[in-house]
Amino acid sequence: MAKETKIPNATIERIALYLRPLENLLQQGIDVISSRKLALLCRVRSAQVRKDLSYFGEFGVRGVGYDVRDLIREIHRILGTDRQWKLGIVGLGNMGMALVQDEYFTRRSYRFVAAFDSDPEKIGKIVIPGLTIESASKIGQFSQVLGIHIGILAVPPSQAQSVADRFFEAGVKAILNFSPIQLREPECCHVENVDFTVSLDNLAYYSGRKINKSNAS
Amino acid sequence: MAKETKIPNATIERIALYLRPLENLLQQGIDVISSRKLALLCRVRSAQVRKDLSYFGEFGVRGVGYDVRDLIREIHRILGTDRQWKLGIVGLGNMGMALVQDEYFTRRSYRFVAAFDSDPEKIGKIVIPGLTIESASKIGQFSQVLGIHIGILAVPPSQAQSVADRFFEAGVKAILNFSPIQLREPECCHVENVDFTVSLDNLAYYSGRKINKSNAS
Repeated sequence: MAKETKIPNATIERIALYLRPLENLLQQGIDVISSRKLALLCRVRSAQVRKDLSYFGEFGVRGVGYDVRDLIREIHRILGTDRQWKLGIVGLGNMGMALVQDEYFTRRSYRFVAAFDSDPEKIGKIVIPGLTIESASKIGQFSQVLGIHIGILAVPPSQAQSVADRFFEAGVKAILNFSPIQLREPECCHVENVDFTVSLDNLAYYSGRKINKSNAS
Repeated sequence: MAKETKIPNATIERIALYLRPLENLLQQGIDVISSRKLALLCRVRSAQVRKDLSYFGEFGVRGVGYDVRDLIREIHRILGTDRQWKLGIVGLGNMGMALVQDEYFTRRSYRFVAAFDSDPEKIGKIVIPGLTIESASKIGQFSQVLGIHIGILAVPPSQAQSVADRFFEAGVKAILNFSPIQLREPECCHVENVDFTVSLDNLAYYSGRKINKSNAS
């Protein structure tokens, strides 16, 4: 346990990333994977995979590999995704709707327990069975009553900070932010920004190099 | 130029990440930033910032910092985001609609030049001014005629691979994939996956630790 306090953030990010290919492997009936193969699937170095997993004890067999099922279970245990997390989402525009309808959340241990919007025309509408849009003014109240763990922000940038503050004030300590602004976060809290423009910029970089390369040949 | 071939992927990802806080700083009228401050904003070590930027030549002044405007321009030049990139999107459900309406794309150098869907009821609809939904069967034809650089996939997982293949066959070398599946990609091409569940898993991890910590105190 003392060892876990020293786990670098980058390691936590990577082990979350290892989950998807591992789950795909299991679906394909593959039970054992080498660090080299897992590294290839996740586009990291195999030494990195071994180092990341070594933080959590020894659960690979040298020359054989990792048991896929054990690895998935262990990663879920480490991340805490073996328990249920209650989500509250704010902003039921296109992005918000795409999120609440995304099966991926429910296949994992995430459950939308509340949805909020400031548009009076949306309030009262049922977005998915069991989830009705509430007024954004009720974020604090609902967060406390329902025990929301994670607030999800799919609001315009101009509203993001005030919505985040309402969550923080109600004791919600984690925010997943889809708004393209940098949020001020209290010491006690954790904000993750989802920014696909970073991925797009990476594509531009690699494409530019490929275009240049093919022009040169 | 020879030096640039050795730039690690992780560095490219990070410099794309540096852009947003830098652009925010400029909006706030801040012209100079230290590597320490930039590192704080981006949640990386300041030695890392200095190392990443050193790959691209010396453009910081020791003890003073970086000129924000220069840094932004230089990062755009390195990434290739100082030129225009043409996007073709497939799947105009909630996620696809959220993307085409996202101002962030146009504020950068990305422009949607084509939109495709396989739903006959959607074909012919105008999603934003100048962008009409075409049949997904025309992906190859449009990609070649319009010179699409990057294909964006916002389709169900079951359709993602066949759509990606149509782009690849038409010479599109870059894919931004919002579908939660691992795509097979040809040697010549580059796929970036947008997976916010990884961010969510990170939040679960940090929240769990905070919950445990406050329980213990």
